[in-house]
Amino acid sequence: MESFHVVGAVSLLSSIQMGYLARRVGRAREAHKILPPAVNGPPEFERTFRAHQNCVEFYPLFLVTLWTCGLFFSEGAAVVGGMAYISARHMYFNGYVKSTKKRLPGFYLTLAALSALALMSLTGIVSGILRKYAHVHL
Amino acid sequence: MESFHVVGAVSLLSSIQMGYLARRVGRAREAHKILPPAVNGPPEFERTFRAHQNCVEFYPLFLVTLWTCGLFFSEGAAVVGGMAYISARHMYFNGYVKSTKKRLPGFYLTLAALSALALMSLTGIVSGILRKYAHVHL
Amino acid sequence: MESFHVVGAVSLLSSIQMGYLARRVGRAREAHKILPPAVNGPPEFERTFRAHQNCVEFYPLFLVTLWTCGLFFSEGAAVVGGMAYISARHMYFNGYVKSTKKRLPGFYLTLAALSALALMSLTGIVSGILRKYAHVHL
Repeated sequence: MESFHVVGAVSLLSSIQMGYLARRVGRAREAHKILPPAVNGPPEFERTFRAHQNCVEFYPLFLVTLWTCGLFFSEGAAVVGGMAYISARHMYFNGYVKSTKKRLPGFYLTLAALSALALMSLTGIVSGILRKYAHVHL
Repeated sequence: MESFHVVGAVSLLSSIQMGYLARRVGRAREAHKILPPAVNGPPEFERTFRAHQNCVEFYPLFLVTLWTCGLFFSEGAAVVGGMAYISARHMYFNGYVKSTKKRLPGFYLTLAALSALALMSLTGIVSGILRKYAHVHL
Repeated sequence: MESFHVVGAVSLLSSIQMGYLARRVGRAREAHKILPPAVNGPPEFERTFRAHQNCVEFYPLFLVTLWTCGLFFSEGAAVVGGMAYISARHMYFNGYVKSTKKRLPGFYLTLAALSALALMSLTGIVSGILRKYAHVHL
């Protein structure tokens, strides 16, 4: 694992982003005076809350595809896909806070980055399994 | 890590399943005309939403026990336990969409698969620590 | 990865804790007769539910910083930070069940443990990248 510093850096950056987005929800609670454990309130608060929840729901999928891409396909490709995902999530969150419709461009970019990471992972895993168990070198 | 392609394949499959379940929630939103950020609606929508949330809540636990089992106990056992978990989640989700009670068989299977993965991980970790720090070979 | 048994043990312990906290929500459902998929009810139930949700939201961040610290900085430091996080989450959850205010001491400790893990990870990753790509040895 010594050689996966850059995928580690992208993972750490993404987790700092997730911490920052949780903080944004906390600030929205303060701005709208919504004391926990309540999760309902004015539309802007509910959009901020749901934007964060959606990021939470997808975060483990991102980590899995980032690392399977990095380990089994290419570290460089994982870094590019990972940075694209992090940027897309930033755009998604800020869009969603403004309006439900404005979440969509960032969300589609998120799906594109995830799909690219998953496709590269699949390529790397299938060719690795063929190499290991069937001695087929693509 | 070069040799963990099959555990990587199970992880990737599980993350594709999680993406598919998120899509099912999106389709339930369309069918019942529940626009985000709302998460309340007719019972079938709420069951679909909560079924997905429960999968989200348990997904990191699954990934941890899958990989600790694969790394420290046996790759083959991790694959079997992982595929059992993925099947159980499929059964759970489809059951829960139908009725609250029908979530139970899949849920119990989920817990069984998770417990088996955790128990094998524990065995592998304890015997690894004994071997490494106490030079005891079980 | 053969040598990361102790970080594996901390990961496994944290996932057992997460399973236990999910069980606590299940028991709160039974105590207050809140049948799934409902997530609203008396304040104590809602605090228990949100306490668990907050643990779920932060769990992948914990796993990322635990492993980047263990892999790229120091296994011992990761174990200490990880055990601190698990203890802080225990304190947070039990405090939150009692009152919204009593969640705070545990929550601040959680953030301290996470920040320490992230800072050590960052140190390890930056010095690793400098060593690998710039041949600078700190």
